[in-house]
Amino acid sequence: MSADRLKADLVESGTMGRVSPIRVERRGDLDPKNGLTRPAGTQENKKIRDYAVRRMKEAGLEVQIDEIGNIFGRKKGSKTNKGTVMVGSHLDSVINGGMFDGALGVFGALEAVGRINDEGFENERPVEVVAFTGEEGSAFHVSLLGSLVLIGNLELDKALGMKNDEGITLKDALEAIGHRGNFHRSLDNVEYMVELHIEQGPVLDKEKISIGILENITGMTWVTATIEGEENHAGTTPMRMRADALVAAADIIRFVHKRVNEMVSEFDGSAVATVGKLNVFPNGINIVPGRVEMGIDIRDVVEKNMRNLTQEIIETFKSIEDKYYGVRTNVEISFIHSPTPLSEEVARIIEESTEKAGVTAKRMNSGAGHDAQNMAKKVKTGMIFVPSVDGISHAPTEWTNWNDIENGVKVLTQTLKKLSKT
Amino acid sequence: MSADRLKADLVESGTMGRVSPIRVERRGDLDPKNGLTRPAGTQENKKIRDYAVRRMKEAGLEVQIDEIGNIFGRKKGSKTNKGTVMVGSHLDSVINGGMFDGALGVFGALEAVGRINDEGFENERPVEVVAFTGEEGSAFHVSLLGSLVLIGNLELDKALGMKNDEGITLKDALEAIGHRGNFHRSLDNVEYMVELHIEQGPVLDKEKISIGILENITGMTWVTATIEGEENHAGTTPMRMRADALVAAADIIRFVHKRVNEMVSEFDGSAVATVGKLNVFPNGINIVPGRVEMGIDIRDVVEKNMRNLTQEIIETFKSIEDKYYGVRTNVEISFIHSPTPLSEEVARIIEESTEKAGVTAKRMNSGAGHDAQNMAKKVKTGMIFVPSVDGISHAPTEWTNWNDIENGVKVLTQTLKKLSKT
Repeated sequence: MSADRLKADLVESGTMGRVSPIRVERRGDLDPKNGLTRPAGTQENKKIRDYAVRRMKEAGLEVQIDEIGNIFGRKKGSKTNKGTVMVGSHLDSVINGGMFDGALGVFGALEAVGRINDEGFENERPVEVVAFTGEEGSAFHVSLLGSLVLIGNLELDKALGMKNDEGITLKDALEAIGHRGNFHRSLDNVEYMVELHIEQGPVLDKEKISIGILENITGMTWVTATIEGEENHAGTTPMRMRADALVAAADIIRFVHKRVNEMVSEFDGSAVATVGKLNVFPNGINIVPGRVEMGIDIRDVVEKNMRNLTQEIIETFKSIEDKYYGVRTNVEISFIHSPTPLSEEVARIIEESTEKAGVTAKRMNSGAGHDAQNMAKKVKTGMIFVPSVDGISHAPTEWTNWNDIENGVKVLTQTLKKLSKT
Repeated sequence: MSADRLKADLVESGTMGRVSPIRVERRGDLDPKNGLTRPAGTQENKKIRDYAVRRMKEAGLEVQIDEIGNIFGRKKGSKTNKGTVMVGSHLDSVINGGMFDGALGVFGALEAVGRINDEGFENERPVEVVAFTGEEGSAFHVSLLGSLVLIGNLELDKALGMKNDEGITLKDALEAIGHRGNFHRSLDNVEYMVELHIEQGPVLDKEKISIGILENITGMTWVTATIEGEENHAGTTPMRMRADALVAAADIIRFVHKRVNEMVSEFDGSAVATVGKLNVFPNGINIVPGRVEMGIDIRDVVEKNMRNLTQEIIETFKSIEDKYYGVRTNVEISFIHSPTPLSEEVARIIEESTEKAGVTAKRMNSGAGHDAQNMAKKVKTGMIFVPSVDGISHAPTEWTNWNDIENGVKVLTQTLKKLSKT
C-alpha cells in the first residue's frame, strides 16, 4: 500500500531528533514533553537529510545538493523543453516540535512521485522534490533561509556566514554534516512550485474540511515597544501620583484586540494581531510597575490593512504618552514583510484535484510563513493545507490524522500530474 | 551639636551592609547600585545591632535583648508607678535598600533621649528606645516579626523556628550574631509607643510639608490569580477562535485602575490598588498567550472599602470567565490584614509638638506596614513621618534631606517629653 509507504517515512523520520521513542497511531499517543528537535545543521538534521536522500534515490530520483544545502531529487520529464515542477517543503524543525511540520511536504512529495511512478504516468515536465534548508530559523535565526538564497533575495556568502548560538557558521555546520553541495540551482527553467503543509491553525479542523487551497501568504509586522513609567511603592503612592506602565500597557492590549476585531468584521478580513510578549519590571506584587516591554505581532493578507493597523497601534502608544499617565514610550517596527499572493492558476488546478479526489476543500490564506512565499516571487506557486488537530503546531502534540494525510497526498499527486502536463 | 551626633550615627550605620563607601551630603551623592543589605540575623545586621547597643550604653541607657532579638535601651523615669514610653523602629533592611528606613527611627529615638539628657529634662515615665527584629521580612519572609512576637500575636517558638533561604533558623541566626537574649519584655507596664519613620511615599515631598502625623496604618489584601486561555499560533489562529489570557488580564488591569480611582474620588479616599506582578506564558511575540499569572495589591485604611474592592475584583475575574474569552480563572486572597487605627491622643500630642517646633505638618495615613501597627494593638501608639524625596524607599537612592531629619527629631523629642509627663 502506498499510504503505508508514506506513513512509514513519516514515522521513521518522526523519531529523528526525538529523545524517546513514540507511538503514532493517534494523537493521544503523543507525549507533550517528547517533541523532536532538529534545527538546520545539527546531527539530528543530518539524520533526516540522509534518510530523505536515500529515499529519493530509492525512488529513482537524481539527487543534488546546492550550495546552501537545499536538496533536490529530480525525475526527468518526457519533454525536455518544458520547465520543471518543484514540489516539497523542509526537514528542519523548531525546538521540541512535531513530526509533520515540513516533513509532510517533503515525504508527501516523494510519495506523490512514487505514485506517479507506480502508475507509469508520463510526466512531460521534469518533477523535482525539494527539501529547503533552515525554514524555521531555529538555529541561525533567519527563517526561510534556503528558499531565500535560492530566489536570490539573500546572498549565498552572507547566508553561509551566519552563526548559530554555538558560534558555528552555517557553512561549517553544513560541511560537518555532509550537506553542503556545489550544485547551483537556477530557477530559470522552473515553471511551478507546490508545497503541501499542515495548516498550523484550527480552521480546517474546526470546520471539518479536508483541504485548504491557498490564495495568499500573510504579511507580518512585529512591533516592539517599551513603556517607561515610574516604579513606586504600591502602598504609599496615591493613585493620582502614579505613572503605572502596566496600566498604560493594558490600554494598548485592549486597543489592539478591539481594533483588529473591528477590522475583521468590517472587511470580513483575515487580520490578526497579538500582544504575545509582555515583561513587567520590577514585577513585584507591591510595586507600581515602572517599565513594561511588549512585543506585538500584526498580520494580514491585505497589505494596506496591515500597515494601517500597525500605524494606528503606534499612534495609540503616542496617545497614552501625551494624554494619560505621564509615561514615555519607545516603539519600533522590528520586522516587516509584505503579503504574498500565490498563483491563481495553480490554485485552480489544486481545486480541480480536490473535486476529482472527492474531498472537501476551501480557499484560504496562510497566517504563517512558508518557503512557498519566497518561491512565489519567481515561479507560479501553490500551497495545499491539511488540517492540524486543534490547530496545534510547533509542539510535540502537533497532529494530523492519517486519513487527512492521505487526502492531502491524493490531491498533491493529482495536482502534480496536471501541472506536469500543463 | 546634637544634630551632628544623629547625622554621624546615620552616616556610620549607613555604611553597614553596603559594599562601597558613600558620600551622603545630598541625594545626588548616592549610587543607585550601591544600596545596603542587612536582613535580620546576618553579619551586616550584627554590625548595626552592636553599634546601636554601644550607642545606647554611651547614652546611659540600660540595654536588654529579648528572646526574639528585640533590643531595648531604658532610661528610668522619676515616677516608678508610671508606664513606659517606647520609642523606636528597626535596624534590619531590605536587599539593596537605603539608609533611613528603620535606622532613622532607632537613632532618632536615641537622639531624642540624648537631647532630653542634655537638657536635664526630668521624664516621669521610663523611656525605652527599641529596635525591633526583622521588620522587613527580607530574610525570614514574615514582616514585622519582632513586634508580632512582642505583642503575642506570633508564638515565640514558631518565630524562632522560621528558616531563611539558607535553611538557618532565626534562633540559630540570632545566637550566631550574639543577639538572642533571655529578657522577656511584658507590655503590661508600657503606656505609649512612638515611631519616627520616613514616609516611603511622595506626598510630603510633593506638597512640601515637613511632618506627617499618622492616623491609620493601611489594611492590605493580596489577590493572586491565574488566567488560563489557549496557547495558539499568532498567525494561524483567527481572532474568533482565540482564548487570549493576556487580553483577559488587560480587562482586569483596566478594571482595577478605573474602580480604585472612582473610589478615591467618591469617598475622597486613600484606597490604592496595583497589579504589580504579571507573568505571561509562553511569552513569545508570535504566540497567543495561553496563561497569565497576576498579583494584585489592594490597600485602604477603611476596611469595608478594601473588602468591597477586593470582592469586586474577584467578581470581575469570574465575569471575564463567564462572558468573554473562554478563559478559566483561578483567584485567591493570599494575604490580608485589617487597617490599624493609631491613638488620637498621641496624634494630638505630635500635632502640638509640630506647632511648638514651628514646622508644617499634616494628618495622613500610612500605606506601608510598620511595627507601630502591631504595637497599636496593645498600647497607645503614634507615628511621625518625614518626607522621602520623590517618595522613593527600599532602594539605594532612598533619601531624606538633613533639615527634614532635624525637624523630625525636634518633633519626636517634644512628643517624648510630653508623653513622659502625661
